[in-house]
Amino acid sequence: MKPRIFTRQQIEQVVDIPALIEAIEQGLILASQGKVSLAPISMLSFRSPPGETHIKSAYIAEDEHYVVKIASGFPNNPRMGLSASQGLMLIFSAQNGILETILLDEGYLTDLRTGIAGAICAKHFASQPICQIGIIGTGNQALMQLHCLRYVTSCRDVLVWGRNPQRLAQFATHPLLRDFNLRTTAELSELCQTSSLIVTTTSSQTPLLFAKDLKRGIHVTAVGADHPGKQEISVDALCKADGIFVDNLAQCLQYGDLAAGKEHLCLDKVQEIGLAIQTPWKRDPEAITIADLTGVAIEDVQIAKMIAHQLQAKIC
Amino acid sequence: MKPRIFTRQQIEQVVDIPALIEAIEQGLILASQGKVSLAPISMLSFRSPPGETHIKSAYIAEDEHYVVKIASGFPNNPRMGLSASQGLMLIFSAQNGILETILLDEGYLTDLRTGIAGAICAKHFASQPICQIGIIGTGNQALMQLHCLRYVTSCRDVLVWGRNPQRLAQFATHPLLRDFNLRTTAELSELCQTSSLIVTTTSSQTPLLFAKDLKRGIHVTAVGADHPGKQEISVDALCKADGIFVDNLAQCLQYGDLAAGKEHLCLDKVQEIGLAIQTPWKRDPEAITIADLTGVAIEDVQIAKMIAHQLQAKIC
Repeated sequence: MKPRIFTRQQIEQVVDIPALIEAIEQGLILASQGKVSLAPISMLSFRSPPGETHIKSAYIAEDEHYVVKIASGFPNNPRMGLSASQGLMLIFSAQNGILETILLDEGYLTDLRTGIAGAICAKHFASQPICQIGIIGTGNQALMQLHCLRYVTSCRDVLVWGRNPQRLAQFATHPLLRDFNLRTTAELSELCQTSSLIVTTTSSQTPLLFAKDLKRGIHVTAVGADHPGKQEISVDALCKADGIFVDNLAQCLQYGDLAAGKEHLCLDKVQEIGLAIQTPWKRDPEAITIADLTGVAIEDVQIAKMIAHQLQAKIC
Repeated sequence: MKPRIFTRQQIEQVVDIPALIEAIEQGLILASQGKVSLAPISMLSFRSPPGETHIKSAYIAEDEHYVVKIASGFPNNPRMGLSASQGLMLIFSAQNGILETILLDEGYLTDLRTGIAGAICAKHFASQPICQIGIIGTGNQALMQLHCLRYVTSCRDVLVWGRNPQRLAQFATHPLLRDFNLRTTAELSELCQTSSLIVTTTSSQTPLLFAKDLKRGIHVTAVGADHPGKQEISVDALCKADGIFVDNLAQCLQYGDLAAGKEHLCLDKVQEIGLAIQTPWKRDPEAITIADLTGVAIEDVQIAKMIAHQLQAKIC
C-alpha cells in the first residue's frame, strides 16, 4: 500500500483551529497523565548556512498510529525567497509500522501547533477579558500566534514590538491581520504596561522581559526558546511570577526559558499545562503568570492525526 | 518544489552493490575521522503487537544533503503477510532544509546496508580465501548477508544453522540463493568447526557463540544485536578474540554485543571499522576476529544518496 501524500496547499484547506485547540488540549492532558511515549528528541545542526533540524516522535498508548515529525529552521532562507521553516510529518500504523500518510507541510503544521499552544495558554491562563495583546517579535510565529488567538478571545487590540522598524511596519499592515487593530511601539515598557496578555515570539539569546516589566494580573506566553542558548524571559521575571506553566517539564528545564532559572526558582509553582487544564483553573486577578513553551511531540501527533483525518474525509 | 518520491520497486532496480560497498566504506572512514555529525538516535517501542521504530540521521560536514531514516521492526508482521521491516529514507538539502527526495524503501535499504556492512567486514577481516561461510539464522538478514557476500568472495559453500527446522529447510531452497551450495545443520559446533567466516543474524537475547566455538583463523560478523537486551556473542568469546571491529564504538558499547562484555574486555583490541580499513589490514592467519555491527546512520546517508543519484540519472 502506497502512503497518501498531501501538500501544504491541501493541508491549509482543511485547518479547523477550534477542533485543533481541543485535540491538542486533549494530547497535553494525556501526556501529563503519563499516557504518551515521547521518543528522545533528535537534532542536527548546520553551520554554513546556519540551520537546525529537530526530529520529534510520539505515541499515545494503545492508539492506532504514531507520528514522526521532522522540522527545520534555516534563518537565511527568507533572503532566497524561501520559508525559514521546513519539514514534514509522517503517520505510521502502530499495528505494523507501515507508513500511511505523508503530510508535506513544509514546517507549517509545526508553526500552527505552536500558535495553537499559545492560544491554549491565553484561553486558560490570561485574565479575562483581555484588554490588549502585546506581541514581541515580528516573524512568522508572531503572525501565527495572533491568527490562533482570534479563536480564544474577542480582543482585537494589539501592540507589537520589534527591533527592526521596517519589519515592524510591514507586520502592522499584514493583510492576514486586517481584523486586528494593530499598533506598533519601539518601547517594550509601553507594551508591558498596557497589555494584559503578552506573547514573546523571538529567537533571542538574551532576556527581553524582566521582573520590572511584569505588572500585576499579566500573563506572558514565551514561545521563542526551543533550543539550548535561547532565552526571552529573565530569571528575575520567572522568580516574580506566581505561577509558571510548561508544555513539558523535562524539556523546559533542559532548554526552555526555565533552563536558565531552574536553580533560582521554587519548582512548586511550576506545573505542566496538561495538568493545569484538567480542571478549570481559577485565576487570581492580581497574579502574574508565565507559560514556557518548547514544543512537544504530542502536539505534532494530535495535529497530524486530525489533519490526516480531515483530508481523508474530504477525499471520500 | 515537490520532493521526488520513489517506491521500493523503483529502488530495487538501481541497486549496484559494488558501488554501494565503496560508498559505505567511504562513509565509515569519514565517520571515524570525525567528519560526520550523527544525531542522537531516537526510538519508540510498542507492546501490543510488539514493535520498535529507530530514527537515525546524519550529515557529512560540508555535504550538500543530510538524511533522516526511519526504520521499524514488527516481528509479528510476517503472520499477516507483511514484511517485518518497514520504513523510509528522506534526503534534505543542507543548504535550506528543503525535502528533496523520499525513498519509500519499506525498510529494504536498511536491510541492504546491513548486508553491505557485513560484506565490508568479510572483505577486510576474513582469512582469504574463505573456505566455507557459516550463517546463523534464517531470517531476511541471513538472506541479505549472503546476497552481498557474493560481491566480496568467490566462496559459494554455505552451512546454515537455525532453530526452526521448517524455516531452515525453506531457507536452504530459497530461489534467490540458487548460486550457492547451501547445506543446513542443527549443530552450531559443526558450523563453527568447518567455516572460516561466520555471520550471526538472529535477534537472540542470549549468546549463541562462545569462546570454545572460535577456532584459530576464524572471523565472525555479528549483525543481530542492535537494541538493548540483544546479544549473540558471549563475553568469553569477545575476550578470546584477538581483534574486535565495531561500526561505531559508542553505539556498540551501549547496545551491541560489546555492551555485555565491555567491563571484561581490554578495549585496546577494539577498533572502528572506518579506522581499520583506511589502510590495508594485514591479517594474522591464526587470529580470531569479531565484527560487532549495530547499524550507523552514515550507512543510511551513503546508501540513500547513491540510490537517489542513480534513480535521478535513470529519469534524465
